Amino acid sequence: MTDPKLSAVQTRMFQAKAERKLSFEDIGKAMECNEVYAASIFYGQAKPSKHEVQKLCEILNIPTNHLVEEMGEHFYPSRGGLMSMPPTDPTLYRFIEMIQVFGYPLKAIIHEKFGDGIMSAIDFKANVDKIEDPKGDRVKITLDGKFLPYKKW
Amino acid sequence: MTDPKLSAVQTRMFQAKAERKLSFEDIGKAMECNEVYAASIFYGQAKPSKHEVQKLCEILNIPTNHLVEEMGEHFYPSRGGLMSMPPTDPTLYRFIEMIQVFGYPLKAIIHEKFGDGIMSAIDFKANVDKIEDPKGDRVKITLDGKFLPYKKW
Amino acid sequence: MTDPKLSAVQTRMFQAKAERKLSFEDIGKAMECNEVYAASIFYGQAKPSKHEVQKLCEILNIPTNHLVEEMGEHFYPSRGGLMSMPPTDPTLYRFIEMIQVFGYPLKAIIHEKFGDGIMSAIDFKANVDKIEDPKGDRVKITLDGKFLPYKKW
Amino acid sequence: MTDPKLSAVQTRMFQAKAERKLSFEDIGKAMECNEVYAASIFYGQAKPSKHEVQKLCEILNIPTNHLVEEMGEHFYPSRGGLMSMPPTDPTLYRFIEMIQVFGYPLKAIIHEKFGDGIMSAIDFKANVDKIEDPKGDRVKITLDGKFLPYKKW
Amino acid sequence: MTDPKLSAVQTRMFQAKAERKLSFEDIGKAMECNEVYAASIFYGQAKPSKHEVQKLCEILNIPTNHLVEEMGEHFYPSRGGLMSMPPTDPTLYRFIEMIQVFGYPLKAIIHEKFGDGIMSAIDFKANVDKIEDPKGDRVKITLDGKFLPYKKW
Amino acid sequence: MTDPKLSAVQTRMFQAKAERKLSFEDIGKAMECNEVYAASIFYGQAKPSKHEVQKLCEILNIPTNHLVEEMGEHFYPSRGGLMSMPPTDPTLYRFIEMIQVFGYPLKAIIHEKFGDGIMSAIDFKANVDKIEDPKGDRVKITLDGKFLPYKKW
Amino acid sequence: MTDPKLSAVQTRMFQAKAERKLSFEDIGKAMECNEVYAASIFYGQAKPSKHEVQKLCEILNIPTNHLVEEMGEHFYPSRGGLMSMPPTDPTLYRFIEMIQVFGYPLKAIIHEKFGDGIMSAIDFKANVDKIEDPKGDRVKITLDGKFLPYKKW
Amino acid sequence: MTDPKLSAVQTRMFQAKAERKLSFEDIGKAMECNEVYAASIFYGQAKPSKHEVQKLCEILNIPTNHLVEEMGEHFYPSRGGLMSMPPTDPTLYRFIEMIQVFGYPLKAIIHEKFGDGIMSAIDFKANVDKIEDPKGDRVKITLDGKFLPYKKW
Amino acid sequence: MTDPKLSAVQTRMFQAKAERKLSFEDIGKAMECNEVYAASIFYGQAKPSKHEVQKLCEILNIPTNHLVEEMGEHFYPSRGGLMSMPPTDPTLYRFIEMIQVFGYPLKAIIHEKFGDGIMSAIDFKANVDKIEDPKGDRVKITLDGKFLPYKKW
Amino acid sequence: MTDPKLSAVQTRMFQAKAERKLSFEDIGKAMECNEVYAASIFYGQAKPSKHEVQKLCEILNIPTNHLVEEMGEHFYPSRGGLMSMPPTDPTLYRFIEMIQVFGYPLKAIIHEKFGDGIMSAIDFKANVDKIEDPKGDRVKITLDGKFLPYKKW
Repeated sequence: MTDPKLSAVQTRMFQAKAERKLSFEDIGKAMECNEVYAASIFYGQAKPSKHEVQKLCEILNIPTNHLVEEMGEHFYPSRGGLMSMPPTDPTLYRFIEMIQVFGYPLKAIIHEKFGDGIMSAIDFKANVDKIEDPKGDRVKITLDGKFLPYKKW
Repeated sequence: MTDPKLSAVQTRMFQAKAERKLSFEDIGKAMECNEVYAASIFYGQAKPSKHEVQKLCEILNIPTNHLVEEMGEHFYPSRGGLMSMPPTDPTLYRFIEMIQVFGYPLKAIIHEKFGDGIMSAIDFKANVDKIEDPKGDRVKITLDGKFLPYKKW
Repeated sequence: MTDPKLSAVQTRMFQAKAERKLSFEDIGKAMECNEVYAASIFYGQAKPSKHEVQKLCEILNIPTNHLVEEMGEHFYPSRGGLMSMPPTDPTLYRFIEMIQVFGYPLKAIIHEKFGDGIMSAIDFKANVDKIEDPKGDRVKITLDGKFLPYKKW
Repeated sequence: MTDPKLSAVQTRMFQAKAERKLSFEDIGKAMECNEVYAASIFYGQAKPSKHEVQKLCEILNIPTNHLVEEMGEHFYPSRGGLMSMPPTDPTLYRFIEMIQVFGYPLKAIIHEKFGDGIMSAIDFKANVDKIEDPKGDRVKITLDGKFLPYKKW
Repeated sequence: MTDPKLSAVQTRMFQAKAERKLSFEDIGKAMECNEVYAASIFYGQAKPSKHEVQKLCEILNIPTNHLVEEMGEHFYPSRGGLMSMPPTDPTLYRFIEMIQVFGYPLKAIIHEKFGDGIMSAIDFKANVDKIEDPKGDRVKITLDGKFLPYKKW
Repeated sequence: MTDPKLSAVQTRMFQAKAERKLSFEDIGKAMECNEVYAASIFYGQAKPSKHEVQKLCEILNIPTNHLVEEMGEHFYPSRGGLMSMPPTDPTLYRFIEMIQVFGYPLKAIIHEKFGDGIMSAIDFKANVDKIEDPKGDRVKITLDGKFLPYKKW
Repeated sequence: MTDPKLSAVQTRMFQAKAERKLSFEDIGKAMECNEVYAASIFYGQAKPSKHEVQKLCEILNIPTNHLVEEMGEHFYPSRGGLMSMPPTDPTLYRFIEMIQVFGYPLKAIIHEKFGDGIMSAIDFKANVDKIEDPKGDRVKITLDGKFLPYKKW
Repeated sequence: MTDPKLSAVQTRMFQAKAERKLSFEDIGKAMECNEVYAASIFYGQAKPSKHEVQKLCEILNIPTNHLVEEMGEHFYPSRGGLMSMPPTDPTLYRFIEMIQVFGYPLKAIIHEKFGDGIMSAIDFKANVDKIEDPKGDRVKITLDGKFLPYKKW
Repeated sequence: MTDPKLSAVQTRMFQAKAERKLSFEDIGKAMECNEVYAASIFYGQAKPSKHEVQKLCEILNIPTNHLVEEMGEHFYPSRGGLMSMPPTDPTLYRFIEMIQVFGYPLKAIIHEKFGDGIMSAIDFKANVDKIEDPKGDRVKITLDGKFLPYKKW
Repeated sequence: MTDPKLSAVQTRMFQAKAERKLSFEDIGKAMECNEVYAASIFYGQAKPSKHEVQKLCEILNIPTNHLVEEMGEHFYPSRGGLMSMPPTDPTLYRFIEMIQVFGYPLKAIIHEKFGDGIMSAIDFKANVDKIEDPKGDRVKITLDGKFLPYKKW
């Protein structure tokens, strides 16, 4: 991964991961969390708990204080900002295209099933499955967010 | 739905749907397709087959030639363009936020599981489920796209 | 109000309000809701309930079916999009300036008091008070939103 | 806090704050000012008085001349510019969304209560309260600005 | 004036002004206000008082209720939005160029003379004088705004 | 002043000015020019004469060849580019707001008084006066530019 | 010419020109002006004199009052705004490309020959010549503008 | 020249030029080419021939291999990108303004004289002349490009 | 085709084509030109000859004068502007993605094979072939443009 | 090649290529792949196989571990982002102009020949041929991508 601007500590984390030939699946297992969530810590998109920082240091063999300095208790991520919008990378762009094309239909179905409100991106989980298929394997992404109804006052 | 710019025929379709109090679920059932797919026809984001046009006209009670004129065989959608980017509507914006925050992690997991390539937005299906939950119902969106590996030449 | 693009029905609502010399405070009282919330219905930024539509028609003397056609059960607002960003109107721009200048400080305080998460703009209320002051009256806006903590998974 | 571009001295201030495990509440108390105001000095969004600079140096244990060099009498902040617009961070974005959705309603109410003019973002105070609530704690932000009427000439 | 988007009533006001060969100086005199201020009413950038609406109707020979409908008591301008930014018209662009080139110097001088704060664009007057000069007449624009010091809290 | 990107020599000039507690008024007097003009040299927005470079070096106690290397005879400024547009700093933004709101009225008055043409931003002077006022001091900016009539050919 | 947004009167002028198979060279001769200047009146980019309006009406066979209403004495063009920037039309784009590539070299030569200042776009003439050449005819555009030196004050 | 981003070698070329007090006219003569073309090599906008690189090294007293490394046979310029668009520098901006205002008229005249096609910016020459004039010297820029007719197929 | 903004005559051409169930291949054959070129006339991207206009009118059964009025001798297209950039339609977007990803490699190969210059988009032909393939048919687009070497002067 | 932002390793690859006077054709032959594909590895736009990395190191005489560290198994390119959009370089811009002008015609022909779907930019090959021609050599670019039909569900 070269394109997203990474801090010195994040770069070190990715290098350690590459050298030890660890996948995010390996790392997620060691940290007892989902692999997408594990990856989001590497990209500075989640706040790891004390326990998670410690686990990360063990797996990646990085001295704990190095990670604590940047990702310690005082750290609250400034999320996003990794990509230009729309992103030029085709793997990322396809996600945007899905929203560009099917965003209004998805909004319409959500309103029909739940009423006026949104699908939370905070009380939210995402995961990726590989569905093997003789005609070509398929990527299955599941997005799972709490429905939040609009308040009146 | 007021915001997305709709053609005269699309507006008429939405009005007929509202008057007859039809949901996209009803319409999808009648058309023998997924409700998200059905909605995407209303928004001009999919090319309906001859059979689908006919079914639509029946359910909505619109003379067939009206729909054929705009959505007939000669019609190939110019997809997207319904929303500004990023969209201002919160329900739509959350989809973009999910990509802004979790896009790079999702890309990383796809590459780890499948190698260098993309998740297709063309050989693609999406659907929405309502997961009831005493702490607040949850929206579950499943995105299912073929993995396309990059070619060398 | 001339600048925000309004639909024919919204324009009619504003005209009726002007002719009858009603303030949003009057309308909110009649609808049993906050005046900011009442105004947000006029701007197409909230979904009125059946009861609220009826009340609006009474106060404004507009035939119910006119409002129902555009703001009935099938209607789910596409929110935002009323202003360019940043807005050129000075009253609106000052709100953006407050965020430009004090946004990061506010984010920092929220994290210190609540942890990693956001202040909801959905489970949210806003109101405006006039604080009389001999040195010049003051506008007091209170924003009240649920804290939503980020999930791990 | 990693995202907003900070000067060398600002970075040092945040590091000292993290090492000493000080909250902005602690710092505000020591400086005899509101915590939001205190944070805005760290982000370079306010001009500290001589006395405030001295207090800051004491609490953070930074030699006075280091701060004076960058934040001394000659210093007048170039405010804003910390975030892209709209910001990608969800905590910051929600503030913008509140304006996008409720900005015109707020403007309308201000005009109805005060007449033609603006709410000042200069003669202005903001503060954050935590409202405990069994259904989920709430963030209460109070914005308090002088009303400035438009002049005729 | 063709470029700025004008409402039907504003267009009518400009047409009446052209037919009667009135300058803004004439109109300002009749309305007992500065000519720049008078012009800003034509462009929808100021809220005319009841008296000013009446005077305008007399000078322009437009029935009062026509103006009242659009510029009556209920009317609060959404200011700005008349030009793209930067404007393409050379007369307008030069104003922006003055700020692009001399904006930071002006800010520096204001801070040196007044301290930390801004020059108000609300408690504000502008006027234009013609200074005759054998080497070419000169335009003298005077901008006069209250200094507003930043508050601490 | 931290925000505008300054070259190494410009930064040194501002530091010397701060250390010696010189105002632009002091510097302008020493250089026999207006303070706004003097400030514009510090920001790289004007080409100083040989004599002005020498004077600057004396007042700021910087070796002449340092300034000559960057601001010598070969130097012609690339003006502007110090701020994003619109600028986020409130003091700068108000200048833009004045043009956004009163730009078309000013253009109209210039045409009425001078005919078809522009107010030059090249054959141009600006200055700032402090008008003391018990209700709050006022900033008076005078912009003085040659009128340039459009040519026909 | 379809793309640039033209007013009703401008469209009529272009239609009359097409029907009568007049070139701008013909029109310029009749109006006793350069053909580029004549074209700029059709595009609303110049203010025609009374005499020029009359001549235009004769050549195009349009009743004088039609043109006077839109292009009369009260009319001062809002110049520019005919094209997006950069323009998509290749003939227009090449002009921008010339500036993109050779703009800084041209600026450098102007400064070397004239000193610090600009080439006026107001006291300005442009014309187009066809240079026949067996290897392919050449377009020769001559831009002729007064040099305006920057003032000190 | 400070604003355009220059490579280390380009900066060295400009410094050498300044130290030796060479104009682009001097350099063009030594290189046997037009001064605008010579300047475009300094800005990285043209590919110098082997011979031109050698001549440049002689005039500027830079070791040949230094220039060859960056501007040798392998070098093909990535043209443009020196300025933001529109440029903020007034000398550069006026060029853009000429196109904004007179671009469509110039396009119209080219089509009338040559038919459907463009004026090449590749098979292209530009030069600058100083026309002395008692009312103020004039800048004369001649743009000379091959006409390229659109192909049919 | 709904998305690209079409003039009244262009819309009529597309309707006639749909009613008569003509492909661009049919139309190209009748007009004795390539189908891509034929389509570009429908989209207002090429200037048809007198003969081509006549042929078009015959095939589409549109009275000649209707087409002549909009696409006659006086007509020179303002090309481009049919899509936003980047386009949201996936079929169009893929073209841009090819340039985003492979644009610099293509530029590098062109320079290596031809030297410093460009591939013309004016002296240019494009065509589309369908290559049948049991693993999925392939689209083959051939772009054929004259190489234009940069001039020195 | 100076403009596209290259990583340290990419810069080294380009330098080695220049020193050894290798063309991408030479490199492609040694790597047993197309020259455009070979160039796309240099620009970080393709993921080289282990074997390709080794071959590259041999040809360029770079120690294998240097390339492996940046382009090893863990590396998945973030594609695009090399150019601003639209690009300012004329060779690159012409590609975009081809799409701007002929994009909709190409889309129309693809739909007529293949139905509703896209031409893949992933299962995709591009190559460049030099067609010698006495009237000027021609660049022939062949784009070859799989047709992907839209799914229904």
